[in-house]
Amino acid sequence: MPTFTAPTIATIENNERRQQLQQIIDLKTKPRGALGRLESLALQIGMIQGTTRPQIYQPQIRVFAADHGLTKHGTSAYPSAVTAQMVYNFLQGGAAINVFARQHDIELKVVDAGVDADFANSPFKDHPQLLDYKVRYGSRDAMSEPAMSEAECIAALSSGMEVAKGLAGNLLIVGEMGIGNTSAASLLLARLGEMSIADCIGRGTGLDDAGLQHKTTVLTQVLQRHKNAQTPLEVLAALGGLEIAMMAGALIQAASERRILLIDGFIASSALLAADHLAPGVAQYAIFAHHSVEPGHAHLLKLLNAEPLLDMGMRLGEGSGAALAYPLLLSACSFINEMASFSDAGISEQNS
Amino acid sequence: MPTFTAPTIATIENNERRQQLQQIIDLKTKPRGALGRLESLALQIGMIQGTTRPQIYQPQIRVFAADHGLTKHGTSAYPSAVTAQMVYNFLQGGAAINVFARQHDIELKVVDAGVDADFANSPFKDHPQLLDYKVRYGSRDAMSEPAMSEAECIAALSSGMEVAKGLAGNLLIVGEMGIGNTSAASLLLARLGEMSIADCIGRGTGLDDAGLQHKTTVLTQVLQRHKNAQTPLEVLAALGGLEIAMMAGALIQAASERRILLIDGFIASSALLAADHLAPGVAQYAIFAHHSVEPGHAHLLKLLNAEPLLDMGMRLGEGSGAALAYPLLLSACSFINEMASFSDAGISEQNS
Repeated sequence: MPTFTAPTIATIENNERRQQLQQIIDLKTKPRGALGRLESLALQIGMIQGTTRPQIYQPQIRVFAADHGLTKHGTSAYPSAVTAQMVYNFLQGGAAINVFARQHDIELKVVDAGVDADFANSPFKDHPQLLDYKVRYGSRDAMSEPAMSEAECIAALSSGMEVAKGLAGNLLIVGEMGIGNTSAASLLLARLGEMSIADCIGRGTGLDDAGLQHKTTVLTQVLQRHKNAQTPLEVLAALGGLEIAMMAGALIQAASERRILLIDGFIASSALLAADHLAPGVAQYAIFAHHSVEPGHAHLLKLLNAEPLLDMGMRLGEGSGAALAYPLLLSACSFINEMASFSDAGISEQNS
Repeated sequence: MPTFTAPTIATIENNERRQQLQQIIDLKTKPRGALGRLESLALQIGMIQGTTRPQIYQPQIRVFAADHGLTKHGTSAYPSAVTAQMVYNFLQGGAAINVFARQHDIELKVVDAGVDADFANSPFKDHPQLLDYKVRYGSRDAMSEPAMSEAECIAALSSGMEVAKGLAGNLLIVGEMGIGNTSAASLLLARLGEMSIADCIGRGTGLDDAGLQHKTTVLTQVLQRHKNAQTPLEVLAALGGLEIAMMAGALIQAASERRILLIDGFIASSALLAADHLAPGVAQYAIFAHHSVEPGHAHLLKLLNAEPLLDMGMRLGEGSGAALAYPLLLSACSFINEMASFSDAGISEQNS
């Protein structure tokens, strides 16, 4: 019987450090609290890194790609073939995440977690940005069996941990590409968050009203089919996807190494939810980049007590929202390290 | 009798170009609309620049500093002396705006529009980042006379135009430092926006409840005192401030040169409001960086039909919110210029 043993995740709490950070922030040359969310962000980065001089260097994006057996039931607006086509697009530098990663000098690699295409026999087989961790050619059809066997799910988790292990830098963004993966994310949220599927579901990349109704029917049946899945591992195997399980593994490993997890949208948040169930404490290392317009994301963010940085009406995935939010993290580190304090600058305090 | 003649502001509207831009955006390798607010941002930058290949280069920040005669009535949480102290802080690189300008390679200069301090006899008199456009040592006390004579207001507007004229690059951020300037911004919003002063007012840099009540009483009296000010110039002179008038002049000049105006918070938005009254059309060139928590800002944004990019709970001024939003503008240009289209990448279209 295969098992998954999660590493221990250290707490980031340390009252003395929290107070030191807050005092440094409060004494900067600005009215107290005037930098708003950027101040709590600086504090969180300091707590994650265990320092009053937080710094970010050599940020990494890994985009996990896989297909989903459930799409044969018509749960997505795009055909499955698009997953592989988008992998080629990533490798040629033409997708949104390529553009934003170049802008911010974030190193990008694409992980084949389970795409239903044979890259080993393609012109891209030795591409330096493509990492082959394929578990199988797409997940199974969750309508009739678990999306992954437990062994496959553990293989995906372990591969994700391997992808993240000892990475350069100290910040990880996990992005994804997988036609049909909003369905898997909705299923995980409904089960792990104990919510109605209707609250967890949306149009994905662009379903119309009839498509949305059909998706609701299909996902309700899938939840019913797997009502006996109990442990986080059983739930992830039954309802998740290969890229989501691999992302969860990467997040667990990165948190165990005290890296910042910059979380993108709905799918990445669902991977974090699974990761935090498998290895409690992972979510402490998460900074939430943005509100996706995918409706389940608002519920998922609330469940995770998250206050995202951006609200740009986006729903693309790939890690794109996280890449856009990334410079705000640099700003948070810079102000805490570089701004003068009132006493440095000889500036009068507030009238009392 | 001095007069102010505003330059003509060109319309950015061009139906054909708008459609071209929308089509380019829609054919990028992403579900239609999936980049949300970033898509409308790219479209607006293209319209401002009159091109389907928008680009931003050599961005500029000018921080306008001045004091306010009205502060003698206790309308601010900080003493007036802080304005000059913060100018020294800017020149030594220790303020928030210095940090963010360095991060994003934005050129920063400080404009003395009317600080109540004698920089010409200070160690900073020849500092290359300090521009001397001092109209007077602080504005007049608006409780008893217009904050500026019309000649002073025109001098401030003209100096602002001179500051912005022929600047390097194609994007301008106007920041400000002026103890007491949220009062001037509130007064301008109340009069130009025809709103109740109670809706336009807030705690500025940190007033308590009693301070806020007192500020309301003072500003109500000031509005009553200048109820006969009618034209935009008369209103700006009576209720504004030297830095706000100079910012308005800079925005007018920059719009006449078709530059992007990246608008910071409440004070910068009030300068834009005045500018758009003096030279109708200026607001077309404005991109709104963030929601300030200063309560009047929400009303001012609504009046200007603005949809800001960030909502970070900030209330610092200096142009800091604009500098934080700046990389999003670069992302908007990059995706429209660099992303592959569906046909470039050979990717299947959406199921119909």
